[in-house]
Amino acid sequence: MPGPRRRGTIRSGVEGGGQVSANLQLTEDGRLRHLLTLEGLPARILTQILDTAESFVSVGEREIKKVPLLRGKAVFNLFFENSTRTRTTFEIAAKRLSADVINLNIATSATNKGETLLDTVANLSAMQADMFVVRHASSGAPHLIARHVAPHISVVNAGDGRCAHPTQGLLDMYTIRHYKGGFHNLRVAIVGDVLHSRVARSQIHALSILGCPEIRVVAPKTLLPRDVESMGVHVHHKMETGVKDCDVIIMLRLQNERMQGALLPSAGEYYKFWGLTEDKLKLARPDAIVMHPGPMNRGVEIDSGVADGKHSVILPQVTFGIAVRMAVMSMVTGSNA
Amino acid sequence: MPGPRRRGTIRSGVEGGGQVSANLQLTEDGRLRHLLTLEGLPARILTQILDTAESFVSVGEREIKKVPLLRGKAVFNLFFENSTRTRTTFEIAAKRLSADVINLNIATSATNKGETLLDTVANLSAMQADMFVVRHASSGAPHLIARHVAPHISVVNAGDGRCAHPTQGLLDMYTIRHYKGGFHNLRVAIVGDVLHSRVARSQIHALSILGCPEIRVVAPKTLLPRDVESMGVHVHHKMETGVKDCDVIIMLRLQNERMQGALLPSAGEYYKFWGLTEDKLKLARPDAIVMHPGPMNRGVEIDSGVADGKHSVILPQVTFGIAVRMAVMSMVTGSNA
Amino acid sequence: MPGPRRRGTIRSGVEGGGQVSANLQLTEDGRLRHLLTLEGLPARILTQILDTAESFVSVGEREIKKVPLLRGKAVFNLFFENSTRTRTTFEIAAKRLSADVINLNIATSATNKGETLLDTVANLSAMQADMFVVRHASSGAPHLIARHVAPHISVVNAGDGRCAHPTQGLLDMYTIRHYKGGFHNLRVAIVGDVLHSRVARSQIHALSILGCPEIRVVAPKTLLPRDVESMGVHVHHKMETGVKDCDVIIMLRLQNERMQGALLPSAGEYYKFWGLTEDKLKLARPDAIVMHPGPMNRGVEIDSGVADGKHSVILPQVTFGIAVRMAVMSMVTGSNA
Repeated sequence: MPGPRRRGTIRSGVEGGGQVSANLQLTEDGRLRHLLTLEGLPARILTQILDTAESFVSVGEREIKKVPLLRGKAVFNLFFENSTRTRTTFEIAAKRLSADVINLNIATSATNKGETLLDTVANLSAMQADMFVVRHASSGAPHLIARHVAPHISVVNAGDGRCAHPTQGLLDMYTIRHYKGGFHNLRVAIVGDVLHSRVARSQIHALSILGCPEIRVVAPKTLLPRDVESMGVHVHHKMETGVKDCDVIIMLRLQNERMQGALLPSAGEYYKFWGLTEDKLKLARPDAIVMHPGPMNRGVEIDSGVADGKHSVILPQVTFGIAVRMAVMSMVTGSNA
Repeated sequence: MPGPRRRGTIRSGVEGGGQVSANLQLTEDGRLRHLLTLEGLPARILTQILDTAESFVSVGEREIKKVPLLRGKAVFNLFFENSTRTRTTFEIAAKRLSADVINLNIATSATNKGETLLDTVANLSAMQADMFVVRHASSGAPHLIARHVAPHISVVNAGDGRCAHPTQGLLDMYTIRHYKGGFHNLRVAIVGDVLHSRVARSQIHALSILGCPEIRVVAPKTLLPRDVESMGVHVHHKMETGVKDCDVIIMLRLQNERMQGALLPSAGEYYKFWGLTEDKLKLARPDAIVMHPGPMNRGVEIDSGVADGKHSVILPQVTFGIAVRMAVMSMVTGSNA
Repeated sequence: MPGPRRRGTIRSGVEGGGQVSANLQLTEDGRLRHLLTLEGLPARILTQILDTAESFVSVGEREIKKVPLLRGKAVFNLFFENSTRTRTTFEIAAKRLSADVINLNIATSATNKGETLLDTVANLSAMQADMFVVRHASSGAPHLIARHVAPHISVVNAGDGRCAHPTQGLLDMYTIRHYKGGFHNLRVAIVGDVLHSRVARSQIHALSILGCPEIRVVAPKTLLPRDVESMGVHVHHKMETGVKDCDVIIMLRLQNERMQGALLPSAGEYYKFWGLTEDKLKLARPDAIVMHPGPMNRGVEIDSGVADGKHSVILPQVTFGIAVRMAVMSMVTGSNA
């Protein structure tokens, strides 16, 4: 008696394809049921998430930072890949909604015993979970889980392989809308290791859906996916042209392991060509904002003065991230009415 | 000033003997005080646990899955042996009862510092714990702790060595009663590695106490304890006779490490002789149910089709397990009135 | 946009100096804002903490052990150094105050990714934390954090390097006041490895501030700091004179690693000269109390009979520790009114 299977083909776990995912993510009457990827979601859903998050930002500023929307619901943080920071943001968001939170670091447990991913999830479902927040090193794992859970359970992707990190993409959109008022006249540059970045993928999808007219990716060829232009972005191989006249500059984290491989010469070389310094920032618009998903490598992809400077909105991103996750969690459980 | 000692001899930690344990487990007026083993408990207590669990099953189906029975009480999950799954079921059960839950993975902490088990427990008791849920690799550890805790603290065994796993035994009884209505006309087969299984021990004790007339153990000689027949079971060394005309088939997990030792030839050989396939299942009664404590080794002790088939009640076992643990926790704290 | 910097010089993290810390710890109108060290705090603040704790001791004895003082507040346990026991006491204290608790074992996470301590803390601050409980192997780390957090966030030191462990010092003062009624006529001996002990440092500061007329440290020269007499203590190099006529004997834990180094001959030798036995205890006052911060090494620094004997108040220390931590947490958040 495994969880009921949803209609539609059950395919391999390793894909994320737009149309199918959009169907999987929405109920028949068009409400958000799972959040797996931003790709293929309608603009009205993204806007609804941002609007709902806006109402939660004020909750965080209250004396008592709790609302009872998820009281008695059980949120399972299923982290097949360790990430204290992301897990913490979801834990806080769930607790502010008054949910019970169960943290499962699966990297070190059940799968050790030879159980399959779907058996692990079926078991946790049978414990009457209401939501799975899933982080997994394999692209598509949250989709696979979403296809097999019981109808009352929602799945939220907290980062899967190189595929997607939709709540990060959404909090970035919230931040941009907060500081820039909207997306329709913006020039946005995403700078750095786009190739390995699920964050960049989610940002590009979200910006496209929300109508941003000019999305640039700025990186050396070795750090760009081959098909990147098919995503509707402009490719720049120089910082100087890449950030010129931009309203928003999003710096990506450079994974240390890239440096040890053959992809890059050294941290110093990277900083020289691709690090965001005060000088390069001057090429952008005078009111440009600088974003970073964290954790930062100061002196590698970003100058310390820029990170702490007046253009930086890196810490507000974190604050908005809690509200955005509260919004997603309340919407997928139908508790936001 | 260690915890007060209960009357009776303090013996070595490594035993679990019936009469003594029953005394230790019950208050003077016959209520459940600790749950250490099912051996020696009166049938009325087991039935009371199952009845109480029945009232909690409906709690899990409510919109708000919480009752305030343990509000303000502190439940400490003391896991000296790692088990994410079992810990999670107790954590959920305690949170549904509104308790505060403290998870302690002791394998990696206090005992490292050379402190004795009883000093660790005395310290945690002094933090005004109300309940210890104890998992330990040594048989008898929960009994030892129960003998030394203060009068207001209850101990629940979450699995000790090869000795007992009483809440697993109870949830299995709940499942059988749910699907079969009772125990008095049943033929039950327990199949597999009985030798190393605390789960099997608890099941055999519970079935005997509740009046099951025919309990079979079905296994190769190398996976049976020598004295197994003294527990009142019928021994079968062939699956074909072992599961014939049974109402209930309980498959045990085969620990991977058995395969690497000298006890068994190979996973393939094991499956051929002892795995539950569709064909072997046909020998049981047409309305037989198939159970497994999890995590399953598909294709080793159980065929995947059987695990997911119409006879399988493996996932309902998990759901009932939450309600059974809520029942035990509320009874030992005297909160079930 | 990092957290706002407080006025005053930002110095290196490795110091704890009295006057500066007192300023950092108190608000402009003299209330407790952070608890970093007891050194330099006014006696009225220590007394207020002990008085507030007294009101919380009764909470632990109630049927429902919770008060709503910190409801909706988020307490982050930032443990850069692993300590299950200390973390647990803070977790229980926070939950009894109805706070939401987030446990972060930072030793294994964010700093792995090359992020600086201050960036980690700035990020967690941006998640709208209300309190950081900080344990760190480096002396001064909690001070460094306190200097950089936003105005609404409080920092409580849960042990930093060899510097301070103020809540331990406070619970020891609570215990002494509870059994002895005050400090003004007391002779207190602190015995053992004072050199490596942040606990001893906090005890000495607290006893001085609260007016204890005779504080003795009793240890071999190799286990005493060179400047120890400048702290206003009397040095004894023999147990016999050290504990003579004392009202309070505080035994310190001997870290196992000291034994492996060149500092000490062997556990047996240590016990012979510095272990608290029944015989040596007889030299103290007949109503002397024996204390130990735990975890104990029975048969090394303390005889088992003494640890469990009628003079021992080691387990009450633990119970009082919860109330003292509740007092500190409610005071630094201004929730104790």
